[in-house]
Amino acid sequence: MNRLLSIRTNGPVCHEFTNDLQSWLDEMAVGDGVLTLMIRHTSCSLLIQENADPDVQRDLLAWLNRIAPPADDPSMGWITHRYEGPDDMPAHLKAAILPVSLQIPVQQGRMMLGQWQGIYLVEHRDAPHCRQIAAIFQPS
Amino acid sequence: MNRLLSIRTNGPVCHEFTNDLQSWLDEMAVGDGVLTLMIRHTSCSLLIQENADPDVQRDLLAWLNRIAPPADDPSMGWITHRYEGPDDMPAHLKAAILPVSLQIPVQQGRMMLGQWQGIYLVEHRDAPHCRQIAAIFQPS
Amino acid sequence: MNRLLSIRTNGPVCHEFTNDLQSWLDEMAVGDGVLTLMIRHTSCSLLIQENADPDVQRDLLAWLNRIAPPADDPSMGWITHRYEGPDDMPAHLKAAILPVSLQIPVQQGRMMLGQWQGIYLVEHRDAPHCRQIAAIFQPS
Repeated sequence: MNRLLSIRTNGPVCHEFTNDLQSWLDEMAVGDGVLTLMIRHTSCSLLIQENADPDVQRDLLAWLNRIAPPADDPSMGWITHRYEGPDDMPAHLKAAILPVSLQIPVQQGRMMLGQWQGIYLVEHRDAPHCRQIAAIFQPS
Repeated sequence: MNRLLSIRTNGPVCHEFTNDLQSWLDEMAVGDGVLTLMIRHTSCSLLIQENADPDVQRDLLAWLNRIAPPADDPSMGWITHRYEGPDDMPAHLKAAILPVSLQIPVQQGRMMLGQWQGIYLVEHRDAPHCRQIAAIFQPS
Repeated sequence: MNRLLSIRTNGPVCHEFTNDLQSWLDEMAVGDGVLTLMIRHTSCSLLIQENADPDVQRDLLAWLNRIAPPADDPSMGWITHRYEGPDDMPAHLKAAILPVSLQIPVQQGRMMLGQWQGIYLVEHRDAPHCRQIAAIFQPS
């Protein structure tokens, strides 16, 4: 039970797609198992984070910009990879420390997420992109 | 073979629970497969780290506080999510860069950890919490 | 279908081993499933990153040294774990925020990586090491 999910982005954002995943599991009428996700890019990330207060997502994006500022920031003059502009290399840095793959245990067809957890695509690039996520459900 | 593990915490700590996991695998008398863990919260983390010298865990917590200081630190005035105090948003930041899910290959019933590896819950909040970890073993 | 892969390193590097993994999958003539990798050490990491421009890997290593400098850097005087030299504790810090385990969905025997993704071992220590990665393929 494989699937490729596509998500369009238009600049840095935390895009929640928890419901899309649950709908897919519902369609397949699965029982117990594990859902595995892998993002097929190196300048955006997967993430499980709080989905109650949108400020959490804004603060997260702001913090990522502080620990990995754009390459035209005076503190980042040492960066050599600049092909696609000042947001290029920092996007790879952020992608190195946020998850590229996630596993979510599933029980009786429901993802075993906590009350405040949502599943996100985190876009690190400024330009519009179409992002692909490989998803696979393994029954247990 | 699913299980919910509960761990009580009382402030920031690296709490090792490697032995609890191995005991559970022993009880089930499993063979080869993969153990998947997912923490059901967004302000604490899972981690595999060195379990020989406790200084490693102390230094890790100190470093996390340096890259994501409390919201009342002068450098963190830009933080907007402050509902539950100065340790609230930094806990989400730390949870974004430390693992939320882990997979451990299992061979003949033993987790294939290296000699110095232990499995930890890392608590990022100051107040006492009861944390849940969803665990599932998939035979191969 | 388990395997232990060994990789020798000689100082900080991003060592790509995507082809070794694909060759192993080819030998086993697998179909659909999930490949799980776990590194059996706490001072090096696994990573999926861009494999087109080597500058990306150099910039990544440079950035990791900036957010987790050697213990003899004036900013790191607070570090207590110094058994094996100034690169000891920073290696644990880097290993905490880069992946220790990875999952790659496999379809008709091919890892579902994106066009620019490669799978790397990231060495954080200065001295030569022999690193082990536990790999397991689970058919779906």
